[in-house]
Amino acid sequence: MLVDGVIGYNKTHTGSKINQAACDLAKEVADEGGCLIAGGISQTPTYLSGKGKEAVQAEFRKQIQIFVANNVDFLLAEYYEHVEEVEWAIEVLKETGKPVAANMCIGPEGDMHGVSAGECAVRMAKAGADIVGINCHFDPFVCLEGMKKMKAALDKADLHPYLMVQPLAYMTPDAGKQGFIDLPEFPFALEPRVCSRWEIMKFAREAYEIGIRYIGGCCGFEPYHIRAISEELSKERGGFMPEGCQKHDMWGQGLRLHTKPWVRARARREYWENMKPASGRPFCPSCSKPDNWGVTAGDDMLKQKTEATTDEEIKQLAAK
Amino acid sequence: MLVDGVIGYNKTHTGSKINQAACDLAKEVADEGGCLIAGGISQTPTYLSGKGKEAVQAEFRKQIQIFVANNVDFLLAEYYEHVEEVEWAIEVLKETGKPVAANMCIGPEGDMHGVSAGECAVRMAKAGADIVGINCHFDPFVCLEGMKKMKAALDKADLHPYLMVQPLAYMTPDAGKQGFIDLPEFPFALEPRVCSRWEIMKFAREAYEIGIRYIGGCCGFEPYHIRAISEELSKERGGFMPEGCQKHDMWGQGLRLHTKPWVRARARREYWENMKPASGRPFCPSCSKPDNWGVTAGDDMLKQKTEATTDEEIKQLAAK
Amino acid sequence: MLVDGVIGYNKTHTGSKINQAACDLAKEVADEGGCLIAGGISQTPTYLSGKGKEAVQAEFRKQIQIFVANNVDFLLAEYYEHVEEVEWAIEVLKETGKPVAANMCIGPEGDMHGVSAGECAVRMAKAGADIVGINCHFDPFVCLEGMKKMKAALDKADLHPYLMVQPLAYMTPDAGKQGFIDLPEFPFALEPRVCSRWEIMKFAREAYEIGIRYIGGCCGFEPYHIRAISEELSKERGGFMPEGCQKHDMWGQGLRLHTKPWVRARARREYWENMKPASGRPFCPSCSKPDNWGVTAGDDMLKQKTEATTDEEIKQLAAK
Amino acid sequence: MLVDGVIGYNKTHTGSKINQAACDLAKEVADEGGCLIAGGISQTPTYLSGKGKEAVQAEFRKQIQIFVANNVDFLLAEYYEHVEEVEWAIEVLKETGKPVAANMCIGPEGDMHGVSAGECAVRMAKAGADIVGINCHFDPFVCLEGMKKMKAALDKADLHPYLMVQPLAYMTPDAGKQGFIDLPEFPFALEPRVCSRWEIMKFAREAYEIGIRYIGGCCGFEPYHIRAISEELSKERGGFMPEGCQKHDMWGQGLRLHTKPWVRARARREYWENMKPASGRPFCPSCSKPDNWGVTAGDDMLKQKTEATTDEEIKQLAAK
Repeated sequence: MLVDGVIGYNKTHTGSKINQAACDLAKEVADEGGCLIAGGISQTPTYLSGKGKEAVQAEFRKQIQIFVANNVDFLLAEYYEHVEEVEWAIEVLKETGKPVAANMCIGPEGDMHGVSAGECAVRMAKAGADIVGINCHFDPFVCLEGMKKMKAALDKADLHPYLMVQPLAYMTPDAGKQGFIDLPEFPFALEPRVCSRWEIMKFAREAYEIGIRYIGGCCGFEPYHIRAISEELSKERGGFMPEGCQKHDMWGQGLRLHTKPWVRARARREYWENMKPASGRPFCPSCSKPDNWGVTAGDDMLKQKTEATTDEEIKQLAAK
Repeated sequence: MLVDGVIGYNKTHTGSKINQAACDLAKEVADEGGCLIAGGISQTPTYLSGKGKEAVQAEFRKQIQIFVANNVDFLLAEYYEHVEEVEWAIEVLKETGKPVAANMCIGPEGDMHGVSAGECAVRMAKAGADIVGINCHFDPFVCLEGMKKMKAALDKADLHPYLMVQPLAYMTPDAGKQGFIDLPEFPFALEPRVCSRWEIMKFAREAYEIGIRYIGGCCGFEPYHIRAISEELSKERGGFMPEGCQKHDMWGQGLRLHTKPWVRARARREYWENMKPASGRPFCPSCSKPDNWGVTAGDDMLKQKTEATTDEEIKQLAAK
Repeated sequence: MLVDGVIGYNKTHTGSKINQAACDLAKEVADEGGCLIAGGISQTPTYLSGKGKEAVQAEFRKQIQIFVANNVDFLLAEYYEHVEEVEWAIEVLKETGKPVAANMCIGPEGDMHGVSAGECAVRMAKAGADIVGINCHFDPFVCLEGMKKMKAALDKADLHPYLMVQPLAYMTPDAGKQGFIDLPEFPFALEPRVCSRWEIMKFAREAYEIGIRYIGGCCGFEPYHIRAISEELSKERGGFMPEGCQKHDMWGQGLRLHTKPWVRARARREYWENMKPASGRPFCPSCSKPDNWGVTAGDDMLKQKTEATTDEEIKQLAAK
Repeated sequence: MLVDGVIGYNKTHTGSKINQAACDLAKEVADEGGCLIAGGISQTPTYLSGKGKEAVQAEFRKQIQIFVANNVDFLLAEYYEHVEEVEWAIEVLKETGKPVAANMCIGPEGDMHGVSAGECAVRMAKAGADIVGINCHFDPFVCLEGMKKMKAALDKADLHPYLMVQPLAYMTPDAGKQGFIDLPEFPFALEPRVCSRWEIMKFAREAYEIGIRYIGGCCGFEPYHIRAISEELSKERGGFMPEGCQKHDMWGQGLRLHTKPWVRARARREYWENMKPASGRPFCPSCSKPDNWGVTAGDDMLKQKTEATTDEEIKQLAAK
């Protein structure tokens, strides 16, 4: 159960009130199932605007106060595009004495400043993270490519943190180095990219085989996707099935009672495992070229703005 | 708010208890927003097994008792593949004196016995339906093709029932005559076919322009799809926006505050209206050949079975 | 061996000189293999410009003089979008006393004035055509859909001309009613649509089974496509193989000597018959919306121009 | 004008007779246009079977005798998957004192023994090649990715041979490390992958800008593809257009006279430059997984066989 720290955005809803409400909610739900609670922080516009370590760490310290006050089980720094910033975050989280997990939102090509995925993992581990991995920005299989590189570099450096992965539930083989935010479909036309349960089961198995033991999901995951992870690894988790499993029969077995015999013929594991699902969109391509105007942290274009973009500015941006 | 009538499947959960619980739930929710409640029935295995009008209508009468007892606002016969069966259903529903809506789950090619979509509409109207249309089985735009044929035939016959459409939220240009159940992705790998909100808004506008006034959704619709209909037709509905609209800004306007300028450039209506979303699945086709072993009502293959298919039978079916 | 009649376009190359040269060439080549020679005419801008029967037939008469003078074996009227014009052509060709073949460049949806494909076939046969069919504008399988409708209508009318089909070697499931000229890829980016030999063999078999005995090809056909027809129907043609067959082994048998065992594994008929060839173009769609500004014969927009379009006019057209 | 050396495969057609005939043909054609003649050799089964340097070089020496006897203008070692073998070839070719070009059939991922593309280029240059580059196995744009890596490594090593590229005319973004032979469509269903002239023009421009001055084509190139290179670089080549250019107007200008105004609207450079051509194959994917049983030079599986594979062996291979 994850609580993401927020900074309040107006006078009625202060960050501290929102964060406390989130902790309350998380505790309530976690208690139902004996879950742990994590407090999470992520990358800051402060970093992208180039304001330096002190300013960035001050942000992090402000954010985690509420987690410490609520005595969460562990802390999580995730969604970092630059290894330097996540190192700063890990330092701050370590100050609490709690276990620390750290994820970067990078793919196999590494961070936005050209640090390789393997080197990122080594630096996160050296900074003190107990759990190291990847979240968001890429699909399950692209994330696993990144994780393999992390694992190899960690092994080589004789570092052995736990491994963690929380990919998108969107297929993004075309997301380039920077991830799905640059894809033209982000964020309101990602539907055709949503993973099926079978794709998620395949992911869960491959993740486990790589040696990853914290396997979850990020944007796009629905409850049935998480259930699919749980089902696929049921044996490894001690042989029990998730509660949500009562709602369906595994591998399409519920289709055995279907009126049409050709639908009954789909009540088989091999059928769904080998499925190459069509998009139903013959006028659309299968891949997109990511937008990306060639800039990253430090570039003027990325300085945080306090005002929303004007109509005139949008027109100029669209013209690019 | 729709209550689908079910026949109880075991001794603990009788059909009548389930139906009563459903009516209670529907009333509770409908009262929140001043909605009407409909009681719905659909096609029967009894019909497909060829047991005749009397047996089929007896099923319908049993199903609607609970709706009458709960005094629902109107009755709905939907998901019929054969116009003859929906005529029988309409007759039964008319006995109650309540308004009756009737939908067939057909596309532009008409019903499974070769009756054209236009003729189906005329026969539903003549049988007494106050509202006539199409639901399920096909995507929004294929359904509208069918609705245009219905409208033309009704106009020609000088019949003027209200028009209704409740399509899938899955793109199915390749679903043939029989609909998405025959598509190999049905029902557990339909993800890449899910409609975006923009596709649903386009559908809502086109449906309205055809003259359809009861515009909804069937399998695959999520709340944000229904909200999209509501937003697109906000002016026609009296100028108010749906409550769920508070959660986002129309046409991606919320992106104006995004850090990346190329994402801010997406905060425009034309951007999303012209989107051809990629599937992220270069190893998958865009269309599938529907399964369909060439049989329909009356065929032995479709006689209802009381036992689930055995492993041996599944193996034989798979071999086909 | 077909000679297409042309009208000379300048003083040096008169139509009559070009046509005579074509006849000479055709004879030379036909004599090598004991082939028949046909003289062919096709639809006229005169018809599209609405100049009437007399003017159109005068064009045809002018075109066929050279064929008559060269005593070709039979005459062919092909590539007609309007059944009325091909009827006029057949009348003129019949005046010569030679056998007459007639093809329309239509698909299953019929001619550009709304006459069904079946009705078109019946009218061509009644006008006196000894051979009736479809050429150009659509892919092999779309053409066969049209041919099935023609065959059914001819059978119903108890008319029994020989059947003929000469499709494109481009896949065009998306070409709408008017054919591949309206596809945005026409004519200089049709490459990804080119048929494989296996697709052509499948076409040849299906054409034969429908009862078509004059099976050829139109735009896009290469010699190896024609060879594929010949090979597929080798038994039906008397058991001999085409000469070009010496250059390869059927069904990829030549791969048996390949160095890589996984390439040797492709030396099998089932492998190639079940091939779903990828386009290698993940950023391109699989279908296109045909251009079509909603006009046909009689529309002002289609009046023939004698001058090439100016830059200014092209700019205006592009803006549409 | 390239003459590929062959080893005779039976008693009637000895290698030496075939090679002499090829030289005669090449000279005849080259003289028409003032072209140079190259004699070419390529990788040997002897190398793949692991028979060592002496045996491999003996093969090369045998092959080039005829080129030396015919006094060809330069020699070309191309289509090598292992840099070691092309080094051996360059050594042999240098013995003749003629200019030597050397190409490997590799992509950006380098040779089959794990040597990077850049290192391959450096080693070819150091072995004495005057011209260095890539041919076959990958599409124009994948080859250019490889060429960029070669150029960078050569620059870094302060080596400055001429650069050369001769890609496939098939799009192969999915060909993995080993190239198009492993693609399931190879070699008899590559049609949907054929490049358009516009793609080839784009390639020619990009190749020129990288600094490549020997720009040609390999498998799949048709005369109109070569013409497209020539047209695109007309200015750089001294301002003259290729002869074949008389057959068409550049950038679709010939369409200005088309009857349909929407086809006339295609007579523009921007139209064709931005074309994303559809495959017309909605039931096919856009990419394929390459076959590849994980073996390369040295593996038993790749030992050359003198007998064609038997039916039984094909069945076993297919079962893999």
